[in-house]
Amino acid sequence: MNTRAPNAVQDYYPDDFAHCYGCGRLNAHGLQLKTRWEGDETVARFTPRPDQIAVPGFVYGGLIASLIDCHAMGTAAAAAERAAGREIGDAPAPRFVTAALRVDFLKPTPLGPELEIRAQVRETSERKVVVGATVWVAGAITARGEVIAVRMPATMIAPNR
Amino acid sequence: MNTRAPNAVQDYYPDDFAHCYGCGRLNAHGLQLKTRWEGDETVARFTPRPDQIAVPGFVYGGLIASLIDCHAMGTAAAAAERAAGREIGDAPAPRFVTAALRVDFLKPTPLGPELEIRAQVRETSERKVVVGATVWVAGAITARGEVIAVRMPATMIAPNR
Repeated sequence: MNTRAPNAVQDYYPDDFAHCYGCGRLNAHGLQLKTRWEGDETVARFTPRPDQIAVPGFVYGGLIASLIDCHAMGTAAAAAERAAGREIGDAPAPRFVTAALRVDFLKPTPLGPELEIRAQVRETSERKVVVGATVWVAGAITARGEVIAVRMPATMIAPNR
Repeated sequence: MNTRAPNAVQDYYPDDFAHCYGCGRLNAHGLQLKTRWEGDETVARFTPRPDQIAVPGFVYGGLIASLIDCHAMGTAAAAAERAAGREIGDAPAPRFVTAALRVDFLKPTPLGPELEIRAQVRETSERKVVVGATVWVAGAITARGEVIAVRMPATMIAPNR
């Protein structure tokens, strides 16, 4: 185990489910977001590219929604593992998908500094996890999210695999 | 005026605000979404790339949220113009930004076919437009969204421009 940084959930998704544009380690074109525990919260960090803008100087809202979404799915997986008595890295991580996503954009998010996405588990059950998230940049919260994650249904195992 | 396809809102955003990753005509790396009226609804169409996936065979939810978001901003601009007695192309389009975004993912969205995002104006005032949206693929609705759009605040005119 790496003692310098906790394990990232996304590094333990099974290979078949590690192609997500937002957080799949096997998606070379994607964002490759990583979700890690910090105490009872999870944290992910991401520095947007210059083209990921809404208007010049500010981060694209769709990117912020995407980061919240993937970080929430990772958080749900991490929470499900903790509920089962395991930590990230002990076993393949379960794969959750998004049932509902809500993002409130509180103020424009400046482009340049690293974004920090922090998440908290609000409710958890065998099938569903509700995650709250905040996006921080340069010490201020610019967006808040709430995401309902559900266990990946069997219908998402693609028929051609 | 092109008689074969109605004008797209995004082609009439002022150059300084036409760099959005989701819909800016001047963003070479972006999605370049186009929003057009079809009667009282607006429509945008987009075919996801193979890497824009959640898990193999299905479209990335963050992309769906992004398409709903940009199409809703375009719809808000188009609705504001209609409220002022103008149609798309009569003048530069006003630029709205997202205050809140909600997406319900009703079922997995298969990768391959073109997505059609349809939107309706639910409420409109000088400052704010509420837009409802549905994502269609192969004749079925896979996601629904509601977006609150507000006129772009002066604070989003980047200081370095």
